[in-house]
Amino acid sequence: MRQEHSDTIRPIHFADGRLQLLDQRRLPRETLWQSYDAAPAVAEAIRAMVVRGAPAIGITAGFGVVLACQNALGQADWRERIAADIETLRAARPTAVNLFWALDRMQGVMSGCTDAESALAAAEGSARAMLEADIAGNRRLGALGAERIAAGSGVLTHCNTGSLATGGYGTALGVIRAAWDAGRIREVFADETRPWLQGSRLTAWELVHDGIPVQLLCEGAAASLLRSGRVGWVIVGADRIAANGDTANKIGTYGLALLARAHGVRFMVAAPVATIDFAMTDGTGIPIEQRGEEEVLELGGTRVAAAGAHAFNPAFDVTPANLIDAIVTERGVVEAPTRERLATLREA
Amino acid sequence: MRQEHSDTIRPIHFADGRLQLLDQRRLPRETLWQSYDAAPAVAEAIRAMVVRGAPAIGITAGFGVVLACQNALGQADWRERIAADIETLRAARPTAVNLFWALDRMQGVMSGCTDAESALAAAEGSARAMLEADIAGNRRLGALGAERIAAGSGVLTHCNTGSLATGGYGTALGVIRAAWDAGRIREVFADETRPWLQGSRLTAWELVHDGIPVQLLCEGAAASLLRSGRVGWVIVGADRIAANGDTANKIGTYGLALLARAHGVRFMVAAPVATIDFAMTDGTGIPIEQRGEEEVLELGGTRVAAAGAHAFNPAFDVTPANLIDAIVTERGVVEAPTRERLATLREA
Repeated sequence: MRQEHSDTIRPIHFADGRLQLLDQRRLPRETLWQSYDAAPAVAEAIRAMVVRGAPAIGITAGFGVVLACQNALGQADWRERIAADIETLRAARPTAVNLFWALDRMQGVMSGCTDAESALAAAEGSARAMLEADIAGNRRLGALGAERIAAGSGVLTHCNTGSLATGGYGTALGVIRAAWDAGRIREVFADETRPWLQGSRLTAWELVHDGIPVQLLCEGAAASLLRSGRVGWVIVGADRIAANGDTANKIGTYGLALLARAHGVRFMVAAPVATIDFAMTDGTGIPIEQRGEEEVLELGGTRVAAAGAHAFNPAFDVTPANLIDAIVTERGVVEAPTRERLATLREA
Repeated sequence: MRQEHSDTIRPIHFADGRLQLLDQRRLPRETLWQSYDAAPAVAEAIRAMVVRGAPAIGITAGFGVVLACQNALGQADWRERIAADIETLRAARPTAVNLFWALDRMQGVMSGCTDAESALAAAEGSARAMLEADIAGNRRLGALGAERIAAGSGVLTHCNTGSLATGGYGTALGVIRAAWDAGRIREVFADETRPWLQGSRLTAWELVHDGIPVQLLCEGAAASLLRSGRVGWVIVGADRIAANGDTANKIGTYGLALLARAHGVRFMVAAPVATIDFAMTDGTGIPIEQRGEEEVLELGGTRVAAAGAHAFNPAFDVTPANLIDAIVTERGVVEAPTRERLATLREA
């Protein structure tokens, strides 16, 4: 068993009434922290992907509500101001359900408050608890997922689901961290994840930073890799899991699930229970964000595509439950997910 | 029927004893022609991908032999000099069989020559004929492929298989040009084709240049697109087709074939008969070029991946014949390819 050395990154800090976010657009080129003191700027940071990853978006929005409460102190219409800021945060991005889950939870804890001071205290307590619970939950789901991985396995992950995408430790990358620390993983592969290159820029940075070797590949090379027999599990995160197990995640996940099935490679989704939208019957109802064409047509702000070309750029896709071998959460593992099996994870 | 306006690009010129290549590393940013007067520099241009695409590599190598003959004029060991240059050209890249096919053909036409002057004349005649025959063949295979496409279809292509990848007109892109000119195509999608972005930089440039609208997508978005029902055919080229129909082509092609099959979308390979390696029993024997890690880790010469990350970068993959609905050549179309059916295309 290796020393547990693989968890040293925390992208979200709240101190002295300010939210600090590690700017994920700049990594790995530079380590730049952005500072926020108002909720609309936090909403814009989520939209512009200063912070991304479903759990991290939820936690960030939670602290956005704390800032909303701070700025409402001493205002007669404090309740309306906070409510307006929450709506601004809610509109930042459409697909990850953790954003709405976190905002609903913040509204819940503040609902009984009769003044802005107590709302602020309740909000800050709840946001901090959410952050800590996320990290603790990721450690639990990481351990549960790692148990499923046979010693000597190769794994392939997609996008970034690590400390940067969560409060810390990560979901799919939490499973990989835990399995690496337990000596079960032979090699880690990561899709570079165009157009935003979260794999190349963020996942590789986290893994190298924490001493885990990684090999990047272009998405087009995944089928060859899976055919080679070097990968036992594809492990991904989720932005929203419908009640039947259909899973919205970063564009490319669905294709990867089809390729895994075609090659007899197992496919794991790792996510906190907060990512399960029990009100969503199946994946067909999950709203899929379409992002700007320039993300595909440009690289690092420089146009690479021929002038006059257009782009098809959905940010997410939906993997049907029948392609998923296991959904791993902090409350347990659901194999071959169905509506009935997933319902067992629901809070009583 | 639209006017036939979709064919205006020629990337390979030979005049005044010099070979001119349109530098495909610079497109679409700039239109830069590189000039060559010796075979080793031509081999290096192939290796460095100034020119790429299986048929274009073959034709370029043919003119490389012409330069070898020129430089051997007046030399006592002219025959050895030409032979050495041919071996240098042969070693430029391993996967595309057209390179070896073209060099074998050049050696054949020069075999009876008793002096460098007659070798030069034979070589130049053969290289020019090869270029013209490639364009004419592409027009024929384009028309044959276009007939298979139902009016109103969407098509998806991968990499660049157009005028830039051939003597002119293109293979898969020749089919798309012909089907567009015949009014059969509703919309054209092109994978951006990481790591080298041939789709984004070259295919989009050709299509826009010739008045055909195109939508680019990241490889990860292909499964979503195919699921949407907007695409009737995936149409790709080939670098080498084994005798049983297994097809080596740009990395990403095999995954695309699996995704097409999973969605009931048809899959067409368009290539000249010269791309069929009848001596290669099946795809397992085709050598797959592994290219440098920096192609994945960098973008336009700038490191984007985290320091310390490595890369898995095969340049090609092999699509099994059973995933291919049609192989379209200038001598005819083979549906559901088998060894016996492909053998009918062989020259008598």
